[in-house]
This record gives sequence, structure tokens and C-alpha cells, in this order.
Amino acid sequence: MREIVIGGAQMGPIQKADSRAAVVGRMIALLDQAKDAGCDLVVFPELALTTFFPRWYMADQAEVDRWFETQMPNADTQPLFDRARAHDIAISFGFAEKTPEGRYFNTSILTDRTGNIVGKYRKVHLPGHSEFDTERAFQHLEKRYFEPGDLGFPVWHNMDAVMGMCICNDRRWPEVYRVMGLQGVELIMLGYNTPSVNSQMGSEGLEQRLYHSDLSMTSGAYQNSAWVVGVAKAGDEDGHPLMGGSIIVDPNGFVVARAQTEGDELITHACDMDLCNFGKTTIFDFARHRRVEHYTRITSQTGVEVPD
Amino acid sequence: MREIVIGGAQMGPIQKADSRAAVVGRMIALLDQAKDAGCDLVVFPELALTTFFPRWYMADQAEVDRWFETQMPNADTQPLFDRARAHDIAISFGFAEKTPEGRYFNTSILTDRTGNIVGKYRKVHLPGHSEFDTERAFQHLEKRYFEPGDLGFPVWHNMDAVMGMCICNDRRWPEVYRVMGLQGVELIMLGYNTPSVNSQMGSEGLEQRLYHSDLSMTSGAYQNSAWVVGVAKAGDEDGHPLMGGSIIVDPNGFVVARAQTEGDELITHACDMDLCNFGKTTIFDFARHRRVEHYTRITSQTGVEVPD
Repeated sequence: MREIVIGGAQMGPIQKADSRAAVVGRMIALLDQAKDAGCDLVVFPELALTTFFPRWYMADQAEVDRWFETQMPNADTQPLFDRARAHDIAISFGFAEKTPEGRYFNTSILTDRTGNIVGKYRKVHLPGHSEFDTERAFQHLEKRYFEPGDLGFPVWHNMDAVMGMCICNDRRWPEVYRVMGLQGVELIMLGYNTPSVNSQMGSEGLEQRLYHSDLSMTSGAYQNSAWVVGVAKAGDEDGHPLMGGSIIVDPNGFVVARAQTEGDELITHACDMDLCNFGKTTIFDFARHRRVEHYTRITSQTGVEVPD
Repeated sequence: MREIVIGGAQMGPIQKADSRAAVVGRMIALLDQAKDAGCDLVVFPELALTTFFPRWYMADQAEVDRWFETQMPNADTQPLFDRARAHDIAISFGFAEKTPEGRYFNTSILTDRTGNIVGKYRKVHLPGHSEFDTERAFQHLEKRYFEPGDLGFPVWHNMDAVMGMCICNDRRWPEVYRVMGLQGVELIMLGYNTPSVNSQMGSEGLEQRLYHSDLSMTSGAYQNSAWVVGVAKAGDEDGHPLMGGSIIVDPNGFVVARAQTEGDELITHACDMDLCNFGKTTIFDFARHRRVEHYTRITSQTGVEVPD
């Protein structure tokens, strides 16, 4: 048994006017809860430090820049790293990253139990659009404010397990789980900010959107025999609702913990990494069963090509 | 609207002693039911003409050969093709194929509404093993009796839709749906013979096995914005139970029809191919969102390679 007690630290809404310091205070409160619950590792949402700013169209780059971090940790987040180290808890969270070269990414990091950053991921599948869209009920400008991640889907050895990360819309793409699965991933962590309403189909409904979120993560877990932890930023941000539905999924694709609210809420589960072994050595023993000669379109072709 | 009324013709058990003619008689009865129900297309299971013989270890090739068809249609199946043509119904079913060159495949075919075969698929992902396995509760010798399919995952234009096929264990592999999705598939048909018991983990239970079957098909449908029709051969074949659970899944990943029995049973749904359009042009618009530069492991690597 290789047990890791994992906390999914769902966060309620962050308003535009909220300071980083206030947000970090809430994250530290969740860390304290996690310590009391015996957690070894705590996963926070995508863009955990700020409101989900890609919903706002900003023409002025200086206005954009204020949502980005130029180093990590920094003065605002150092207290979070310090508390994690004090609690002997590894953490993962997302933030908007501006590099020294002036590049912009939607990023998440993973630490060990001493607060050292051991992994960094930059979101590959940016949803939405890059210019103001008059057809949508609201904007989703991730393709404007970020460039697609340039680090691929690496995995890291941490806490005697193989861990990987992805972010939000990445979770809907089976390629993401598979690339990590091919590296033996045992735990996939992800955060998300998912609007409760489809900006292009208002009638879709929250229930369907939660189902799609679950479906993406449960199938990714099952088909790669890995734990998946998906953590929402939820609730009403300046009039724009984000869905909750944070879950922990076991390597059989079953949801073993689920958030009940749209606020700051910790969900936990004692996750045995050895539960990954059965699937990885039987039905999903890739070496015995995969037939890559028939998968060529997946990497040779980006869009749809309908044969004649 | 491009509506196709689809019938999923689940079949109950076929015993070793049952003749092809008797089985075809049952298939024709299901076709007649489908005609009464207004069906345009009927999908039958994998290896629809015989018992699921890969559960039996056979050392004698002549004994193996009697489960295979050397042409299609043939004398036993011609009445099925004739009835389908008379009813103006396209059909798909699976059978064991021996080629003139003496090659063995687990195959399915698709006809148009006049009984002409317009598509052929050979199962790529063969589960199980090739030699007698003393560790298993029962045998699953697909890797012994078949070679992996050599046709890839083609799609066909049929009935004003883009259609593809896969078979049984193929449905658990997201690569299968994606390769067809990249060809614009709108309807994926598959049959299966899935034991109700995991031969390597008896405690797994039928409920979990049905969930995994559903999960594979619902996620494949959603992530590729396509209809999926999965049809079981079910029930007790000479003391070996096969699960039912035949379903029709819409392009949002919702189950819209489900078999209730483990016997011969027709499920139907009026499937509008135009329901595929929304997903294919928004969240799963592959050309805009896929990032193939980060998927290289999927085709360059068969088995797991854990990084240092």
C-alpha cells in the first residue's frame, strides 16, 4: 500500500476587487483544515490567486499584466508555501505566469512536502477565442491572454508516486491522460474555472456541464488506471457563475469524494497508489494491447479530414 | 435534421450446439421487429453468428475453423441479407472471418439499405492471451484465434452520414474514437461479448463492468461529438455468463436507450446526425484546439516508459 491522503481544496468565488493577500489567507485556512484532516497533499484550483479574468475583455496590456505573477513564490504567496512546509503538506495550485521573456501562460505548480517546487505545467488546451466575440453571452478570452503551454505533459516522482498535472479544459481531451499514462502516471491533478453556463448554448444547463466534467475525468482515470483529482473555483464572481463539482476519482473511474457546495470546501480521500497496478497490468497493459500503427492520424493531423 | 432510426439488436446467448441457421432465424426475427419499429439501420453484436468461442481452448485448427466464415454473405447468412433488403434496412454485424489466404480476423461489416456490403472492419484491440492460462477462472483466447485487424479505423459515407465501426474491447481505447473522430465520424457502431465476470478478478462484479462499458462509450461519444451504438451478446452461453447493457449514446454522451434484459432485445432511437454539429464546431473543434506537438508519445511509443 502506498497511501497518500489527498485534499481537494475547492475555492469559492474571487471577486475582481479581492487582493492576493486575502485569497492566500483563504488558501491557508484550507491548508489548516487539510492538516487537521491528515492530508499529505492538497490540490487548489486553476488561477487560484485571482478571479477568472479571461471573462473580461481588456485592450490595455498593463491592465492584463496585473493578473499575472512574475515569480513564484512571491511576496503574496510566500505565506502559503511557508504554511505548507510547516504542515509537511505538498501542494499544487494554478496561477497566471508571465515569464522574464514576457511570455504568458496558464500555469500550475507542484511542490514536495518541504515547499520546494518540483513540477511546473503550462496549460496546453486553451478554450475560447482571442478577439471580442459579439455572439457569446460572455467572453472566454484564454486564447487572447495566454499562449499554449510549451512543456508538454511531463510527470514527476513525488511522495513515492508518479504525478502529473493538467488544467481545466485539458481534462476533456483523452490525449492528455494518455500521454501521462504512457509515462506511468498514478495521480493526475487539475484545477478548473468552468462557467456554469455555456456561452454559446445557454440552454445546455448546469447538470449537463457537471456530467461532462465528471465523464472526462472518470474516463481518463479508468482508461489510464490513475487517480484523478479535479478541483474547481466555484460560485459567483462579479455576476458570472462558475460551477463546483470538485471530485476525487479512483483508478477504476469511480468518484470517491465530491464537493457539495460552491464555496471554499475541502474534500479528502486516502488514495492508495497501488490501486493503479491491476489495470496497468491487465486490461490496460499498453505494451501488450496498444496498436500504434493504427493511431497515426492522432499525431499527423490536427483537424478533421473527412475522406471522400 | 438528418434522422436515422437505429435499432440495437441485442442477442441472448448462443450455445455451442446452436446452428448458424437457428441464429440467423433469431436475427431475422429481430429485423422484423425493427421494421415494425421504423428502423433504418440495425446493429447486431460481435461474433453474432456463433457462441463466443474464444473462451474455449482448442488445439486442433480444424475445430477452430468451424467457427469461421470463409465468405460473406454465405448460404447461412444470405436469408438475413435478403430480409434486410426487403425491409430497406441497413445492417451491421460481427463474425469470425477466415480469408482466402488463411488469415483469421474478428470482423464486422456494414451494409447499405439494399444489402450491399459497404464497409468492413477487423478488430484491432484483441484482449486476453494466446496460450492456455492456468491463472484465470476461464480462458479468453482472442490473441490465439485472431490476428489484430489490418484495416485501421476507416469511416464510410452511408445514409447521408459518416459511419465507423469498432468491436468489443476496442471501445475501451480512446484512440479508437479519436481516429474516427478525426475523419468526421457521426455514428460509431460496435458489438461486444463481454463476460459478466473478470477472469482475473472475480470480485469485480457485474455493476462495475457495466459501468466501465458505459463510461467507455459515453466518453467516446462526447469527446468526438458522435452517436455510439453498443450492442451485446448477453446471457449464459454453456455456463459462461455474458453481460448485456446494450446502449445508444447521443453526441453529448448521454444514454438515450438501454437494454433491460440479457436476451434477444431490440432497443431503438431516432438519431439526428445533425446533433453532432454543435460539439464538432465549438468545444471539440479539433482544428482550433488540438495540439498534436504534445501528443507524440501516443504514436511513437506502445508501452509505458516511466521517466527517471
